[in-house]
Parts: sequence; structure tokens; C-alpha cells
Amino acid sequence: MDPQFAEQVLRLLQNHRSIRKFTEQKIPEETINQIILSAQMASTSSHVQAYTIIGVTDPELRRKLAEYSGKQSYVESCAHFLVFCADLNRLDYVTRRQGVDVTETLDTTEKFIVATVDAALAAQNAAIAAEANGLGIVYIGGIRNNSEQVATLLELPAKVYPVFGMCLGYPAQDPDLKPRLPMSCVYFENHYPDLETIADDLEQYDQRVRNYYIQRTKGKRQETWSEMMVKTLAIPIRTHMKSFLEKWGFPFK
Amino acid sequence: MDPQFAEQVLRLLQNHRSIRKFTEQKIPEETINQIILSAQMASTSSHVQAYTIIGVTDPELRRKLAEYSGKQSYVESCAHFLVFCADLNRLDYVTRRQGVDVTETLDTTEKFIVATVDAALAAQNAAIAAEANGLGIVYIGGIRNNSEQVATLLELPAKVYPVFGMCLGYPAQDPDLKPRLPMSCVYFENHYPDLETIADDLEQYDQRVRNYYIQRTKGKRQETWSEMMVKTLAIPIRTHMKSFLEKWGFPFK
Repeated sequence: MDPQFAEQVLRLLQNHRSIRKFTEQKIPEETINQIILSAQMASTSSHVQAYTIIGVTDPELRRKLAEYSGKQSYVESCAHFLVFCADLNRLDYVTRRQGVDVTETLDTTEKFIVATVDAALAAQNAAIAAEANGLGIVYIGGIRNNSEQVATLLELPAKVYPVFGMCLGYPAQDPDLKPRLPMSCVYFENHYPDLETIADDLEQYDQRVRNYYIQRTKGKRQETWSEMMVKTLAIPIRTHMKSFLEKWGFPFK
Repeated sequence: MDPQFAEQVLRLLQNHRSIRKFTEQKIPEETINQIILSAQMASTSSHVQAYTIIGVTDPELRRKLAEYSGKQSYVESCAHFLVFCADLNRLDYVTRRQGVDVTETLDTTEKFIVATVDAALAAQNAAIAAEANGLGIVYIGGIRNNSEQVATLLELPAKVYPVFGMCLGYPAQDPDLKPRLPMSCVYFENHYPDLETIADDLEQYDQRVRNYYIQRTKGKRQETWSEMMVKTLAIPIRTHMKSFLEKWGFPFK
């Protein structure tokens, strides 16, 4: 392998920032195709390919998706919007055509995990392909704010659920990198540690995140990561997820 | 962006094959570091970073993991083995240190999805970083064959579960690309289709997969994709997943 290329790819991966402001520039159809082809070549559990991608081009659908996602306007205004769905329905279809009913398998929590992971791996390949082509992206977990409305809007059948969306477009902003946890807090050798051993590193990270916000907001925002997490997690969100999924053909057996 | 670089990245993404035979060559520590740093820069829901990566270097742990994964010898023999875990425990820890109990939030199905997706996005970035550096990888969903044994072996606390493993090493094989579904079967515009409209494309894909196996095995194996799926899905596997996860602090509320 070419060490210079390796270096460039590492830089691409490590320079990811979510982009939420885009120019008006359209994305060539060939670029979209290459992004989808790249998504498809991600690993998939036992070759099941248990995901589906909906590219949303209809302005009215976009407007509704932006609303359902918590009024995230860039869902409407970005150049292209993809919805990544975990899909066990296509497997149901092809096995039934072979005269076999595999419902018992598809109903398991295991297959829920497989389909969710398949969708995520495909999505991350799409993200990298897009960014390599000069596009910016942001994942939209917000579509789970109104899972059933989104599923209905996109006419998703049972056994297909929208995991997240992704905005794509040419960046009209250049945000700073958001500091991640120190490697010592996410990567361990052989065993999961007693978290007291990383308490100091977490503390340092808290200060780093605080400084990041102070710099970006001229002191208006000065949260640590721990404080952010308390705020984010204090009140449960998307508590409909379990009942929505059960209704939509994922009984977690 | 550099069109030649974009082209090379697309080729990298679209040339992925799982590698299951590796040379004896060790991976430089700096390369491992860059792979983990790349994993860390993947998107994460609301910056929760709800995953942990365990790098398994201990030969005895490797031997056991290979056994637990269904006797996949490359788990033992590959140059490095990573276990990607969905991790809500670190969030529990940091919020408790702030004097706040967010159990009700962490117990939701929503947060199970968030942590699983976070682990998957990080893993796919790791895979791309590894492949850009000339390494081969294979995801090991097989560690879910014996989830509890794996979790115990790696001393994973409650709210941390092993999603999948990943073997890394320098390739000692050069397998063909495995044909994916036609794009017309996974990518749709605006709405999920009536699958009868893609029946012909699925049929063609079935023949393509069949020819792929015939060529690779000199006719010994001649399954279509649909036949493979029937075989793979006929009997539910990993039916312990739900009860394991509930026991391990994921109550799917």
C-alpha cells in the first residue's frame, strides 16, 4: 500500500466534523451512485445485507422529515438526504419465495442487532465516500423522534425501521474538530477497567471540552463533557422506540 | 478535494473483502493507534461516545474467544483482535459523579440503539483505516454465539455488551469481491417499493451469486443468494441475546 495514500485516508477519517450548512450546489448523480456502491460494499453479517437506503428527493417529504426530526432545517435544505433503514423485510420476501417461513428467526433480538449494525456499517462507508468527494455530512438521529410518522411517510413495511438519516451537501461552514475522549478512556487492553483508573483522564477531557466551548462561543457556553452528558441524559427521549418497533415487526424475541 | 484521491478512496471502499488468512507480520503500534483514533472520530449520537474497544493481546484470551466464536481459528491467529462493545456504563459513571442518576434514560431501547450504532460507526472507520494501511479485516459476529462468556472473559460490567469482534492482520489471501445486491434492490427514491417490482433483479442476482460460487468452488457449491438466505435463516441462532442483554443491564424499556 501507498504510505502517502494511507496518511491521506487517516487524515480524512480523523478530520470528520458534522456539517449543517451547505451551499446550493447539487451533487452529481454519478457521485450519489458511487456513495451508494461504497455503502453496499461494507461488511454485512452472513451476507444478509439487511438494510435499505431511501434517497429523499421529494421536497414535500423533505419538509416533513425536517419537521419530524425536530425542525432541523438542513434536513430540508441539504443537497441530498438519505434514510438508512434496518431491513428484515427483503429477507422475509426472498425466503417466502423459496417457500420457507423464517419469521421465528427474523423476530429475534439478534436479527434486530444484525439489521441495525448492517445499516450503520453501510452508512459509515457512505459518509467516508461522501467526504472523500468533498461533501459534508451529518447523521440525523432526530428521525427517531417520530419513528412511526417517518416510517409511514416513506411507506416502510413491517420489519423495516428508519435508524437514522444523513444530510449530504457541499459544506458552507468549516467547524472545528470536536474533541473526542482520550484514547485511554475508550480503548483498553484485554479487560474492561475499573473506571476509577481513568477518572483523571475524564477530568482532563472535561476541561478540554469546556475550553473548546469557551473558545467557540466567546465564553457564553462553558460546559464540560460530563455536564453535557447529564443534560443530554437527564430526561429519557424517544421512549416510544420499544412500542414502535414491536408494532413495526421487531418483537425482540 | 483531489479527484484522484476521491477515486482512490472509492476504490478502497468498494474493494473490501473479508480476510481470514493473515501473514505472521505484526502491526506497528503506531498503526493500531491511528486505527483507534480514526474509529474515535466517527460520528456519535449527541457526542455520547457510547462504545468501548477492547484490544485483545493475551494469547489465552484469544484462544478462548476463538472457541467462543465457533472455532474461528483466525480470531486466535490474526495479528490483532478488537472487540467493539456498546457501552452505556461510562455514561452511567460520569453522570453519577455529577450526582445525577440517569438509569431511566440508559434503560431505554433508544439508548440500546444509540450505543450499538456508535460501536458500529467507530468499527467501520477502524476497518477503513486498517485497509488503507494495507491490512485486511473480518468482522466476527460469532462472538455473540456466547455473549455472556465473552462479556465475562473481558470483564465487561453491566451496560456494556460485545457487539462484534474484528480480526486485523496483513492479508495472506486475495479473495474475489463478493457480489452485492444490485443497487436497484437496496436504494430507493422517496418510498419503499412493492418488492414485486424488484423480483427480476433479485432473480438475476441469485444467478450472479450462483455463478460466483460455481467459479470459486469449481462447481462444488452452486447456491443462489435466496437459497443461502433460507439456509442461514431457517433456524434461529443466538436466541439467548434478549435474556443475556436484559441480564447485562439492557432492559429494552
